[in-house]
Amino acid sequence: MNLVLLDDAEVHEGRATLRDRRAAHLRDVLRASPGRRVRIGLLDGPTGTGTVTHLDAERVELACEFDGDEPSEPFEDTLVLAYPRPKVLARVLEHAAALGFARIVLTRTWRVDKSHLQSRVLEPETTRAHLVAGLEQGRHTRLPRVEQHPLFKPFVEDRLDQTVPPGARFVADGDAPVATTDLAIARPCAFTVAIGPERGFTPYEVTMFAERGFRPVRFPTGVLRVETAVAVAHAQLSLLRAIGTRGAVSPRAVGRAASAESE
Amino acid sequence: MNLVLLDDAEVHEGRATLRDRRAAHLRDVLRASPGRRVRIGLLDGPTGTGTVTHLDAERVELACEFDGDEPSEPFEDTLVLAYPRPKVLARVLEHAAALGFARIVLTRTWRVDKSHLQSRVLEPETTRAHLVAGLEQGRHTRLPRVEQHPLFKPFVEDRLDQTVPPGARFVADGDAPVATTDLAIARPCAFTVAIGPERGFTPYEVTMFAERGFRPVRFPTGVLRVETAVAVAHAQLSLLRAIGTRGAVSPRAVGRAASAESE
Repeated sequence: MNLVLLDDAEVHEGRATLRDRRAAHLRDVLRASPGRRVRIGLLDGPTGTGTVTHLDAERVELACEFDGDEPSEPFEDTLVLAYPRPKVLARVLEHAAALGFARIVLTRTWRVDKSHLQSRVLEPETTRAHLVAGLEQGRHTRLPRVEQHPLFKPFVEDRLDQTVPPGARFVADGDAPVATTDLAIARPCAFTVAIGPERGFTPYEVTMFAERGFRPVRFPTGVLRVETAVAVAHAQLSLLRAIGTRGAVSPRAVGRAASAESE
Repeated sequence: MNLVLLDDAEVHEGRATLRDRRAAHLRDVLRASPGRRVRIGLLDGPTGTGTVTHLDAERVELACEFDGDEPSEPFEDTLVLAYPRPKVLARVLEHAAALGFARIVLTRTWRVDKSHLQSRVLEPETTRAHLVAGLEQGRHTRLPRVEQHPLFKPFVEDRLDQTVPPGARFVADGDAPVATTDLAIARPCAFTVAIGPERGFTPYEVTMFAERGFRPVRFPTGVLRVETAVAVAHAQLSLLRAIGTRGAVSPRAVGRAASAESE
């Protein structure tokens, strides 16, 4: 826990009283005593500093001052994800929140086992707990929105453009002719990246995404587990966005990108 | 398992007989039958194609043809890692192998709990099993070498230059003035990245690394769990290497980099 995340309703006149796992963390892990200052954040709000004013076996009281940036992540990036196995989903929710994704859209693709849609991790309380753990890890305050679109075709055909912002859109595809190392993100904008199940999207699914402006890209590292692929995708796309057009000026890159688009 | 990894000693006149979890995977997960072709790889050697020639409840026989690139990763990148918790270490070994690291150097830093050095994951057989699982996931064949240097100061002062190749060296430091988005890796070369324990390196440790040519860098995403940090570090540094000097030409980037070096 690198940030004590508070809900608006918990803060009254600049004071918050904690009795749950956050209190236990301050007491047992940080071994805080009155006067100790800790990083705090307001859910969907600014970050700040909390000063421990009282601490006992039952509760911890904090005096809160919110003066940090709001929000910590300037872009509303979206992760489109094929429903993974429950255990993997729990980790991905946490990682995606820690990485700073603003939106997670789950959809069922051909290679997704139907049972994955019944996971307890998908119960709103559980989903939220994993997201909050990720925010506390990554020192972010913006709670990612999670949407479910179990039916792939209606989602991609009818809902995608309302769900996902325009701008830079990518679909991870191990067979794509363009690798992230050939890419440029020309202007600073939110990105969306679609990541398939363990065995990947089908060629038909990649085509469906491509028809809606998702560029198929290969991550040249190798075949990765879903949670690693999510981290690598965010790391490389956010870096390319920060670097801007400086990322792709070689004739080779332009040539490969052009040939991919003409297919 | 995206690659069936074989040891040199297992292949006789182009044939291999499997009786372990690889046989079970071919039989029960891939539901292979004679004639089925699967990706194979020779440990520390080339990749290729295996054709199932016989399959029963006890064993699977493959006809092997090795014609792939050797090795799949052109650079010998190194991960220097503070001993993590055993559960995390198991995952990091797998992820690091899947990402393509050639070398993993474990060392004890100030914020590493001593008990982490006693982990069963560090027993050579267990370490190797996790690395092999990562290679099978990432379709790599080069088994990462794992070294342990429990004493930090002697390691950094006396052994580092023998252990780690020269070239691009980085140490992850949340307080570093230079972020990966300001960086360039000017020429294609192996990189080394040092990643601390959950609570990071101490300022003294960062200075020790910096004195040996490790540039302190910040990964701007947020504070990440060790296994996510390993993936993000590899993803961004390998991308910067592929992009080359195109990554940093703005006066801001140069200015920040220069001010960091003059400290």
